[in-house]
Amino acid sequence: MPAKQNLVRVSEVVNPDLQKERDGASFRVDEFARWWHGGAEKLRFKRELEQELFNDMTEHSTLLHYKSYEEICELALKQSFTLARKLRAIQQRINPGGNDIWPKLFSSTLVWGATPAGNPFLVQFAMVVDAIKMQGNKEQWERFGKRVENFEITTTYAQTELGHGTFLRGLETRADYDRTTQEFVLNTPTLSAYKWWPGGLGHCCNYCLLVAQLYIDNEPKGVQMFFVQVRDEETHMPLPGIDIGEIGHKMGFHGANNGFLGFKNVRIPRTNMMMRNAKVQPDGTFVKSPASVLTYFTMVMMRCMIASDNALVLAIAATIATRYSAVRRQSPINPNEPEPQIIDHVTQQMKLFPEIATAVAHQLATKSLWSIYHETYGDIERGNYTRLPELHNLACSLKALCTADANAGAERLRLACGGHGYLSSANLHMFVASAAAACTYEGENTVLLLQVGRFLMKSWRAAREAEPLAPTASYLAAPAQGKGFGKWTGDLANIVSAIQYAAANQVRLAFENMAQRLKQGQTREEAANNTGLELTQAAELHGRSFIAATFLAHVTGPAAAERSAEFNRVLQNLLELYLVHTAQRHLSAIMQCISLSDSDLRTLQTRLETALKKLRPDAVAIVDGFDYHDRLLSSTLGSYAGNVYESLFELAKQSPLNQQPVPKSFHTILKPFLKSNL
Amino acid sequence: MPAKQNLVRVSEVVNPDLQKERDGASFRVDEFARWWHGGAEKLRFKRELEQELFNDMTEHSTLLHYKSYEEICELALKQSFTLARKLRAIQQRINPGGNDIWPKLFSSTLVWGATPAGNPFLVQFAMVVDAIKMQGNKEQWERFGKRVENFEITTTYAQTELGHGTFLRGLETRADYDRTTQEFVLNTPTLSAYKWWPGGLGHCCNYCLLVAQLYIDNEPKGVQMFFVQVRDEETHMPLPGIDIGEIGHKMGFHGANNGFLGFKNVRIPRTNMMMRNAKVQPDGTFVKSPASVLTYFTMVMMRCMIASDNALVLAIAATIATRYSAVRRQSPINPNEPEPQIIDHVTQQMKLFPEIATAVAHQLATKSLWSIYHETYGDIERGNYTRLPELHNLACSLKALCTADANAGAERLRLACGGHGYLSSANLHMFVASAAAACTYEGENTVLLLQVGRFLMKSWRAAREAEPLAPTASYLAAPAQGKGFGKWTGDLANIVSAIQYAAANQVRLAFENMAQRLKQGQTREEAANNTGLELTQAAELHGRSFIAATFLAHVTGPAAAERSAEFNRVLQNLLELYLVHTAQRHLSAIMQCISLSDSDLRTLQTRLETALKKLRPDAVAIVDGFDYHDRLLSSTLGSYAGNVYESLFELAKQSPLNQQPVPKSFHTILKPFLKSNL
Repeated sequence: MPAKQNLVRVSEVVNPDLQKERDGASFRVDEFARWWHGGAEKLRFKRELEQELFNDMTEHSTLLHYKSYEEICELALKQSFTLARKLRAIQQRINPGGNDIWPKLFSSTLVWGATPAGNPFLVQFAMVVDAIKMQGNKEQWERFGKRVENFEITTTYAQTELGHGTFLRGLETRADYDRTTQEFVLNTPTLSAYKWWPGGLGHCCNYCLLVAQLYIDNEPKGVQMFFVQVRDEETHMPLPGIDIGEIGHKMGFHGANNGFLGFKNVRIPRTNMMMRNAKVQPDGTFVKSPASVLTYFTMVMMRCMIASDNALVLAIAATIATRYSAVRRQSPINPNEPEPQIIDHVTQQMKLFPEIATAVAHQLATKSLWSIYHETYGDIERGNYTRLPELHNLACSLKALCTADANAGAERLRLACGGHGYLSSANLHMFVASAAAACTYEGENTVLLLQVGRFLMKSWRAAREAEPLAPTASYLAAPAQGKGFGKWTGDLANIVSAIQYAAANQVRLAFENMAQRLKQGQTREEAANNTGLELTQAAELHGRSFIAATFLAHVTGPAAAERSAEFNRVLQNLLELYLVHTAQRHLSAIMQCISLSDSDLRTLQTRLETALKKLRPDAVAIVDGFDYHDRLLSSTLGSYAGNVYESLFELAKQSPLNQQPVPKSFHTILKPFLKSNL
Repeated sequence: MPAKQNLVRVSEVVNPDLQKERDGASFRVDEFARWWHGGAEKLRFKRELEQELFNDMTEHSTLLHYKSYEEICELALKQSFTLARKLRAIQQRINPGGNDIWPKLFSSTLVWGATPAGNPFLVQFAMVVDAIKMQGNKEQWERFGKRVENFEITTTYAQTELGHGTFLRGLETRADYDRTTQEFVLNTPTLSAYKWWPGGLGHCCNYCLLVAQLYIDNEPKGVQMFFVQVRDEETHMPLPGIDIGEIGHKMGFHGANNGFLGFKNVRIPRTNMMMRNAKVQPDGTFVKSPASVLTYFTMVMMRCMIASDNALVLAIAATIATRYSAVRRQSPINPNEPEPQIIDHVTQQMKLFPEIATAVAHQLATKSLWSIYHETYGDIERGNYTRLPELHNLACSLKALCTADANAGAERLRLACGGHGYLSSANLHMFVASAAAACTYEGENTVLLLQVGRFLMKSWRAAREAEPLAPTASYLAAPAQGKGFGKWTGDLANIVSAIQYAAANQVRLAFENMAQRLKQGQTREEAANNTGLELTQAAELHGRSFIAATFLAHVTGPAAAERSAEFNRVLQNLLELYLVHTAQRHLSAIMQCISLSDSDLRTLQTRLETALKKLRPDAVAIVDGFDYHDRLLSSTLGSYAGNVYESLFELAKQSPLNQQPVPKSFHTILKPFLKSNL
C-alpha cells in the first residue's frame, strides 16, 4: 500500500467511486508499481524517501500563489536547503561516502514535492559539479570544485544571453587575456550580451561557471568556461564591475531565481579558465582542446534527463485527470439514469487513456535511452566514439518529443478536468508550465529536430550506399535499397514497421528535396533551411519509430515471462492503444507510402474504441501503479483519497480574500462607486 | 498611423529590423486595418477610444504578477469602475441615450487593455442585464433590472455548481415555494450543490441572478431564475443563511473574483422569480413557459461572442510572436553570414503564418456567424424559428473551434518565442490562459461538438431523404444521395469542396456506426456515447468546412472589387496558406474518401512552402494591420516599436527582488546554511 498524505484537512476515507475502481481492477497495482519504479527494492526505498522528505510539510502548495514574490524566493531557499540536508543525512545513514542519494536525487523529479517553491540550486548539482570535474584540472577541482560540491559556495552555469540562445558561437560575452597581469578581463559589450536565464543567478549564487568568448590579442579562440566570483562571500554584495539581478516573473518555476549578469572590466586569474582540455599558458599561448566530446556529453546527459523527467510529468498529469474523471459525475448517458462518472464517456476516455499509454511508452523509451547512454559512456572511456552521434541524436529527438507531448498532453488532461482544471489548486497548469519550459531550454525543440534531420540525411546516404547504420536507424536500410513495405496487416509488429517505413519515406522526401534544391544552386545551408519542414517531420517520425519499437519489444520480449498474465494483458492493452493511436496520428504520412483500404481504416477506428473499452476498468489502477505521492501531485483533483469537492472547498476557504467577510475595498472603492450614480 | 504607447521607458524609435519590414511590405497597412475593423470610421473611433482609455495608464501590466492577491482584486475593482465611467462619458458625448458604447463595449475584447487585473462585472453587463430584460416581467425590470443596468447594485449570474457544469438539469440548488408566506426558500442540499465560478460573486456582488430547481409541494418544476440579494447594501455583510466567498487562485483572470455561494433556508419573495415566461401564482399554481427559446438565445449570443473574442486572441498572440521574430536573430543559415532574423527560418514561418491565416479565417467566420445571428434574431421577432437550430449549432461549433485553436495556437506562438516566451512580461501565457478558460466555460467544447454531432445526424437523415437542409449543412445533400467527389484538382474551390466532402464522409461514418449500434440493441443514448469520437470528428470538420467556405467566399466574392489589387493579393496568399494547411491537417479524413496521388501530396507540400515564402515580406505588415494597441498586447516582445531587449531589461529591473542588491534572506537563510558545513 503506497504511503499517501492528505494535503487538505478533509476525510482520509477513500471516495467510494475510487474505491470501486480499485476493487474492480484486473491486476495487482503493486506489481505495476514495482515494474514502473525498477523493482521492489527501489519502490520500497522511494516510498521511505517520500515519507522522510514530506512528513513535516504541512501546507498545500497551492497557497504559494498567495505569497509575495519575495516570500516565494525565500521559501525556495529554505526548502532547497532542507531537502539537501535530508538527502545528505540519508546518504550518510544508508551508504556513507556514496553519491547515489546526495547529491544525485537533489535534481530528481521524485523529490519535486519537497521544493514546490522551486530549487535555485538544481543547476549547481545537475551540471556545475560535473562540468568542473570534466572541464577543470585537478588543481581547479581542489580549489573550487570541492567547495561547490560541498555546498560551501553557490554557483550556476551561465551560458545563455539575452540575445543568444541555442547558437553557442553567437555568444558575445568576452574574456580578453591580459598577459601582463595573467588575468582575463570580462566584458559584456552590448545589452544583448547580458547573461540571462541561469537558475539561481539572480540573488542566490556567489560564483558562476561562465561561458564566454576567449580573446588573446584580440584574436577569437572560441568559447571557453571560466569560474567567476560574482558576489562577496561575507556580504553577498555584487563585486565591482558586476551588474547582477533577477530576470522577473515567469510562467512557472517562480522561485528559481533566474538571473541576469553583465561585466565591466572584471578581472579573474588566468587559472580560473577551465583548463583540463583547452589551455591558456601564462605567456598567452593558446592550446586547443584535444577533443570537445566531453562538453558535449554533459549536454547529452541533460537531454536524457529532461526526456525522462517529462515522461514522468505526463504520467503525473494523467494520474490527476484520471482520478478526477472517476470521481466527477456529469451528463447522463441514458436520460433516466443518474449522471455517470465522466470516465464512462468515450470522448473522455479518448482524452485520458492515450496520454497514459504515451507516458508508459515514453518511460520505456527513456529507460532504453539511458541504457544506450551508459553503454556509450563506457565505450568512450574505452576510446570508442562510434555510437556517440547516434546517442546524441536519439537524446535530441526524445528530448523534443517527450517535452512536446508532455506539454500538449498535460494541457489536454487539464482541459479534460473541465472548469476545475483551471483552478490553481488542481496544479495541472504547473505541470503544463514545467513541460512548456522544457520545450525551449537545453536546446529548443525545433533546433534539436533539425539536428536529427541532418543525422538522418547522412544515414540515408549511407543506407543508399549499403554502408553500416546506427542500430536505431537500421530500419532505413531496406527502404533506401528500394524495398517496398509489403502488406498492411495491422498486427502490432506490422504497425511498428509501418511507422518506421513512413519515417523512412519522410527521410527520403527530405533527402530528395534537399538534392533538388542543391541542384537548383542553393548552398547546402539554404537548402537545409528550405527543407526544414520535411527534416523536422522526418525527425519526429524517427523518434516515434524508436518509441514504438521499444514499447513493442518490451511487451513482447523475454521480460514478459517475469510478469503475471494479468499484468501482461494490461501492458498489451496499453501497447495496442499506443500503436493504433500513433498510427492514426501519423496516418497521412503512412498513407503516402502504404496503401490502406477503407476497411483497414475502419478497423483501426474499431480497435481504438475497443482498446479504450478494455482499459476503462483498469485506468485508475494503472495511474495508482505510477505510485506518485500526493505531495508530488499536490492537486485537489488528483489525490489518492479523491475527496475532490471537500478539498476544493477547504482550500478555497484558505484564500486570503476569504479571511474576513467584507474586504476593505468595499468601503474604499465599491460602495463609493455604487453610491455615486455612474 | 496607429496610436501606439510605449509601456516601458525605453526608446520610442522603431527597431530598424521592424522598420525594414514595414518599408518592404507589398500593401498599405491602413487598408488592412480599415478592413479588419469594419471600415475607416470604426477604425478611427477605435483608435480614439484607445487613446482615451489608455492615456492615463502608466504601469506595465506584468507588474501585476508582483502584487498580492488582495491588491490585484482591489485594482480590478478600480480599473473596472474607471472603464465604466469613461465609457459612460464617451456615450454621453457621442450618442447620448444610446447603448452602443456603454455598456456594450464594457465587455469587448478591445478594451481589455483597460482592465489588465480583470473585470468582476463582465457578467453583469454581458449577461445579467439582458437576462432580466428577457426573462423578467416589466415590474421586475423596474424594481431591480434598472438598478442593475445603472450600476447601483452589483450582480452576477449564478448557475454552475461545484459538482455540476454543462448539464443544467443536474443542478441541485433548490427553491421551494412556501405559499403561506408567498416566498421561495433557497437551500444548498449538498456540498456539490454550492454555486461555484460566477465572476464577481466572491466579494464584489450584492445580488445575483440565481439558477435553481423550483419545487412546489416537493414536486420539481424544472430550472428557473431568481433574483437574490446576497449581501447587505450598506455593510456588504453576507445576509443570514448565505455562505459566500471566493473560490481561490486560478491560471488566469486573477482579479475576476469568481465566487462560491451556499444557502440555508434563505427566503425571497415570490416576485423575485423571473416571471416573463414561466410563472408561480400566489397559490402555488405553476404556469409553464410558453417557449424556452429566449433563454437559449442569450446562451447562443454568449457563444458567438466567445468565438469572435478568441479569433482576436489568436490574432493578438500572432502579432506578438511575429514582431518578435523579426527582431530576434538566431542561428545562421549560411555559416559565414550573421545570424538572420528568425522569421527567415522556414520552420519559424511555419509556426507563425498558419496562425495568422487562421486568425483571419476565424475573424471572417465569426463575422458571418454574427450576420446569421442578427438575421435569425429578426426572424424570431417575426415568429419564425426555422434557422434557430442551425444558428445554435454553428455557434457551438465555432465556439469550440475558435477557442481550441486560439488556445493551442497561442501556445505554439508562445513556444515560437523560445525562452523569452516563457517570461510573464511577454504576456503570451495570459492569452493562452484566456483562451484555455474559454475552452471549458459556457459549454465545454467536447459537449458542444457532441451537440453539433447530433444536429449532423438529423441533417444526414434529412439529406438522405432529400428533405431541405440548413444552408450551412447543404453540402451534405450530394454525398448523402451517393454522389462521389469527382476529381481532386487542388484549386482553392476544390479544396473547400474536399473539406466539405470529408466532413460529409465523417458524418456518414458516424451515422452508419450509430445505426449499427442501434441494431445491436444499444439505446440511442448508449449508441451516441459509443459513437462519440466519430461525432466529434464530424462536428469539427463541419465547422472547418464553414470557416473554409466563408474565407473563400470573402476573398473571391464581390467585395474583392472594393479592395486594392495589392491587398487582394495578400488575402489570396493567406487563403492559400489556410486552405492548404487545413487540407494537410485533415489529410487522413480527406484521403479516406478522396484519392490523392503521391504527386498531389507533393504539390500540396510545395504550395505550403510557396505560401510561406510569399507571406514572408508582408508578415509584419499584416499583424500591424490587426492594429492592436500596445496596451492590449502588453508585451515586452510584441510592442509596435519592437525594442525587445531594452524592454525586457527595464522590466526585469522593476522586479521587487531587484530593489536592493542583497536580499534579507541572505543573512537569515543563505549565509547561515553555507557556513553550516552541510
